[in-house]
Amino acid sequence: MEKKIITISREFGSGGRSIGREVAQKLGIPFYDKELVDQIAVESGFAPQFVEEHGEHSPGKSFLSYAFAPQGVPGVMNGMSAADFLWNIQCNVILQLADKGPCVIVGRNADYILKDRPDALHAFIHADMAYRAERIVRLYGESEKSPEARLQEKDKRRRVNYQHYTGRTWGTAQNYDICLNSSKLGIETCVDILVNLASK
Amino acid sequence: MEKKIITISREFGSGGRSIGREVAQKLGIPFYDKELVDQIAVESGFAPQFVEEHGEHSPGKSFLSYAFAPQGVPGVMNGMSAADFLWNIQCNVILQLADKGPCVIVGRNADYILKDRPDALHAFIHADMAYRAERIVRLYGESEKSPEARLQEKDKRRRVNYQHYTGRTWGTAQNYDICLNSSKLGIETCVDILVNLASK
Repeated sequence: MEKKIITISREFGSGGRSIGREVAQKLGIPFYDKELVDQIAVESGFAPQFVEEHGEHSPGKSFLSYAFAPQGVPGVMNGMSAADFLWNIQCNVILQLADKGPCVIVGRNADYILKDRPDALHAFIHADMAYRAERIVRLYGESEKSPEARLQEKDKRRRVNYQHYTGRTWGTAQNYDICLNSSKLGIETCVDILVNLASK
Repeated sequence: MEKKIITISREFGSGGRSIGREVAQKLGIPFYDKELVDQIAVESGFAPQFVEEHGEHSPGKSFLSYAFAPQGVPGVMNGMSAADFLWNIQCNVILQLADKGPCVIVGRNADYILKDRPDALHAFIHADMAYRAERIVRLYGESEKSPEARLQEKDKRRRVNYQHYTGRTWGTAQNYDICLNSSKLGIETCVDILVNLASK
């Protein structure tokens, strides 16, 4: 069966987002990344900044989350934590997007949310630590923390979020149809493999 | 850099061995699987049956292991357990084979043993439980245990062996350059992807 929906999960700094964008361009189908954040923000009433920060991160409640919560609609979250409320919206938005037609979706546990769709191809992109460290400094600039510490923190937050909402271990090969090491294989090779698989 | 050495780790019943054999044939390079067992047996003095059983399985000592141990050479194992002795021989044989030239090596933790070779491509093949269950009954026949129970037992033994000797978690995407779901992508597609990567 033709794979119309491609989900790309990725380690921070691995180039997974760039790979997803190129795959979508080459296949001529929509690419959802920031657009997904905006749509979730609209549907949930949360600020995009909150969705971006918490959509893939640890599910703990924080006082800050309430500062971004939907205004003026008491009880809109039905007693759920802000993170759980956001997860529900995220699931609905991703399921709706997949129903609309072929697309590439980056992150936000879309591999799990769309695991029962036979027309979906689930990819995981990872890379060696040194490659990711060099890449985040080049793309996102320096910071007080070492790039390795930033990566470890991001990895941990994504792992906790994934485990919490899916019950699965993040980065386990069996969760995906294909996993690629972008630092070893190269970004272009990863793009070619995914485009070929989607076109079969 | 051209990838001359291809290691294939695999879930039992996923078709990883068949994929490895086809990749080697298409590339015109040696394929080491049973041949590896025989060579380890010769070098260790263990019976091939013991090497086959224990080379990828739990490292626990068993009384049975001593029945297969090298005969007539007291102290040949230098105080190591039979499993540790076998592991050392296995490492040496795999390192020597890789030095001899391009090849495909299936199983036996070769991904870890050759992790520092820049000319090696490390692949992991997995598949859905139903696909593996159907496949092992077709290829290896019925047994008193259900195919699912046989698969779970094999998976567990390989996981324990891998963890013990490598300190890594078996099936984690980051251990490999590429992981493929053979039941989702098809055996032929997996072969084509690996042949293309090795030929680049």
